Amino acid sequence: MVRPSDDLRDSIRNVPDFPKRGIIFRDITTLLKDKIAFQKTIEIFYDRFKSYEVDKIVSVESRGFIFGSALANRLCVGFIPVRKPNKLPSKTIREEYQLEYGKDALEIHMDAIQKGERILIVDDLLATGGTVQATCKLVEKLGGEIVGLAFLIELSFLKGRDNLKDYNVYSIIQYDNE
Amino acid sequence: MVRPSDDLRDSIRNVPDFPKRGIIFRDITTLLKDKIAFQKTIEIFYDRFKSYEVDKIVSVESRGFIFGSALANRLCVGFIPVRKPNKLPSKTIREEYQLEYGKDALEIHMDAIQKGERILIVDDLLATGGTVQATCKLVEKLGGEIVGLAFLIELSFLKGRDNLKDYNVYSIIQYDNE
Repeated sequence: MVRPSDDLRDSIRNVPDFPKRGIIFRDITTLLKDKIAFQKTIEIFYDRFKSYEVDKIVSVESRGFIFGSALANRLCVGFIPVRKPNKLPSKTIREEYQLEYGKDALEIHMDAIQKGERILIVDDLLATGGTVQATCKLVEKLGGEIVGLAFLIELSFLKGRDNLKDYNVYSIIQYDNE
Repeated sequence: MVRPSDDLRDSIRNVPDFPKRGIIFRDITTLLKDKIAFQKTIEIFYDRFKSYEVDKIVSVESRGFIFGSALANRLCVGFIPVRKPNKLPSKTIREEYQLEYGKDALEIHMDAIQKGERILIVDDLLATGGTVQATCKLVEKLGGEIVGLAFLIELSFLKGRDNLKDYNVYSIIQYDNE
């Protein structure tokens, strides 16, 4: 069976031992520089979510911005950046999340979302799901209704989806093993 | 005279004393969350550059990604991220540039651009022009032909344009004073 995502998978570059030994990094820059593959990615997302009456897309810096912004423009909806601490200039709320070693945090502007707005969260990659869980909490604290979580790549073997059972999770390409 | 960019200017929030005392930060997140303003921004860029036969858009993380990616999708061209050191996984070239205090550097993948490709550089903000000059050097080292530099905001009083005389510089909104 040929899946519509098979040629997109071919346009992702596998970089062994990045950022550290034993990890295969899935490099999306080879997809982005290919205008056909990039356009197709956004169209797949668009077709999947065009009927969801999305009000705004929320994405986490930096790679998340690439897909979230292009899709927001395609869907003709607003775009909300979620950023590392102290990058957003106005009043924010913050959510901490666990890393392999230590903690990190994400922030969103307090006035980014109106209560009841329908929010689609877009990111390039679903790994263990830590950053997307923190992002969901930020959106929900502001009263946003999360209508979907969309990823280009899902590292299925890390089982991030198991931590996102309350949500409608969609990914274009899955990797079942490292 | 009402300029087409006047209502876009109104959708930018002015945040005093960010990131430090005496600076008025021009916050684009209020523009991005407004679907009409965001769409209009991308359409203004699109109309300005649609006849330039652009092959690829190059943008610097993180805010540059937001405009560069949406415009690349709109123009149906490839997108190339320029990033801070050690973020891009494959072989890169690096360019240092001067900050107010100290230095920073940017990287691009060596295989991002083919010799002779027509490149549009997109960023949210033209200030003194340090990052965009470094970006131009990276593109030219790879043999790219820079057909334009496009910014949402130009802080004209910083005279960044004076350092970019070899290029076709376009900005949607100008601030003539702090």
